[in-house]
Amino acid sequence: MLKLVLLRHGESVWNEKGLFTGWTDVDLSSRGLLEASSAGKKLKKAGFSFDLAYVSFLKRAIKTLNIVLEEMDLLWLPTIKDWRLNERHYGNLQGLNKQQTAKKFGEEQVKIWRRSYDVRPPEIDNKNKYNQKDDVRYRDIKVPSAESLKDVVLRVTPWWKKEALPLLRKGKKILVTASGNSLRALVKYLEAMSENEIVEFNIPTGIPLVYELDKNLRPVKRYYLASAKELKAAIDKVKNQGKKK
Amino acid sequence: MLKLVLLRHGESVWNEKGLFTGWTDVDLSSRGLLEASSAGKKLKKAGFSFDLAYVSFLKRAIKTLNIVLEEMDLLWLPTIKDWRLNERHYGNLQGLNKQQTAKKFGEEQVKIWRRSYDVRPPEIDNKNKYNQKDDVRYRDIKVPSAESLKDVVLRVTPWWKKEALPLLRKGKKILVTASGNSLRALVKYLEAMSENEIVEFNIPTGIPLVYELDKNLRPVKRYYLASAKELKAAIDKVKNQGKKK
Repeated sequence: MLKLVLLRHGESVWNEKGLFTGWTDVDLSSRGLLEASSAGKKLKKAGFSFDLAYVSFLKRAIKTLNIVLEEMDLLWLPTIKDWRLNERHYGNLQGLNKQQTAKKFGEEQVKIWRRSYDVRPPEIDNKNKYNQKDDVRYRDIKVPSAESLKDVVLRVTPWWKKEALPLLRKGKKILVTASGNSLRALVKYLEAMSENEIVEFNIPTGIPLVYELDKNLRPVKRYYLASAKELKAAIDKVKNQGKKK
Repeated sequence: MLKLVLLRHGESVWNEKGLFTGWTDVDLSSRGLLEASSAGKKLKKAGFSFDLAYVSFLKRAIKTLNIVLEEMDLLWLPTIKDWRLNERHYGNLQGLNKQQTAKKFGEEQVKIWRRSYDVRPPEIDNKNKYNQKDDVRYRDIKVPSAESLKDVVLRVTPWWKKEALPLLRKGKKILVTASGNSLRALVKYLEAMSENEIVEFNIPTGIPLVYELDKNLRPVKRYYLASAKELKAAIDKVKNQGKKK
């Protein structure tokens, strides 16, 4: 039985502050560092091993992965960094406080931007300091100015088919460390979820999500490496991120 | 002017204890962590940037690299881990105290093992707990049982020619983070040093060694990113590692 593990990075300093982050390259919070360490310990304790790791271009995911690999004594693991695993680009909302955005545009509009499938937030302004257009790491691509979840599906799916799937077919054990929306995009594809299903599906930070795949690489089982209580607390935390306080 | 940067990992816990390490996968010491951080700060301050990093399969080099990349805000940098950049395999000396080995075999014999070009130390015993023959990360290669510096040159040079050189030819800026003897092997090749020259050439831990290359990728200049005083102290420390206390 081949397993695939998805891991959303630990809490970032902007998750903590309730800011829209997107492609802004913010660090893990101290809680996020602990979540990463805990994820690594859980994977080790459960006997997981990997042949390859994929990670986004964002330091919150890369640091999460590095901590996990150190906990598992797998720092030597081949690791491929791919911008297609980046968080959804949040356009001109990047850097804004979620509560204030909710006050300004209304909670419903924020919910639409956060939880609709194909509605993009406002495009990022050229002068916005959280614009990545001049970031050297993206010099070979056209940096998006705002993305819907659908846009993320349209960049994650080709990555999956071209990069990960051929390796899974060879029996390789893969760990994917990325962001909430890039992982939701992948989950949507893996489980052939509807648009309505995926927008209601929340992935908590720092808890390994394990897929068991059949010989045709179709998922037959999905579970988190966490107790029911721990999982509920983590999912509630994610759900409440867009609410006014 | 294309630059190439070589970096020997920070001090490891076995460097600190004076043990022969080789392929044993020991961690950085607290001093080694600081050296790595300092190397990253120096590279950043001097305005270095990179397109790609190469690193060995050993955690002391990988952690050094991760710390450097974090200091430089380059965690997203594509990174290739390659066992051919590993430290020289020290055979049955792995895990032995350097002073005690000097007492047992004589300081001259230890100096021969440490500083000769083509003399291998005793082969590692199958039962030696520091044998890597069953280490999963090396399952695709034949793990050496003991290596001379010449053996290291014979695995580093093909890596250089096949992996790094074609990228340098495209103008890519490369950082290589590895161990004392794998870097010496590379330096020997780069500078076409004689066997006598290379065995007297010491590379200090955690100090970036910069090569400036001409358009034919021949080195025209070599320097360390360190003050003369700092450099002397670091080189003296390496030289004294094999001495009796």
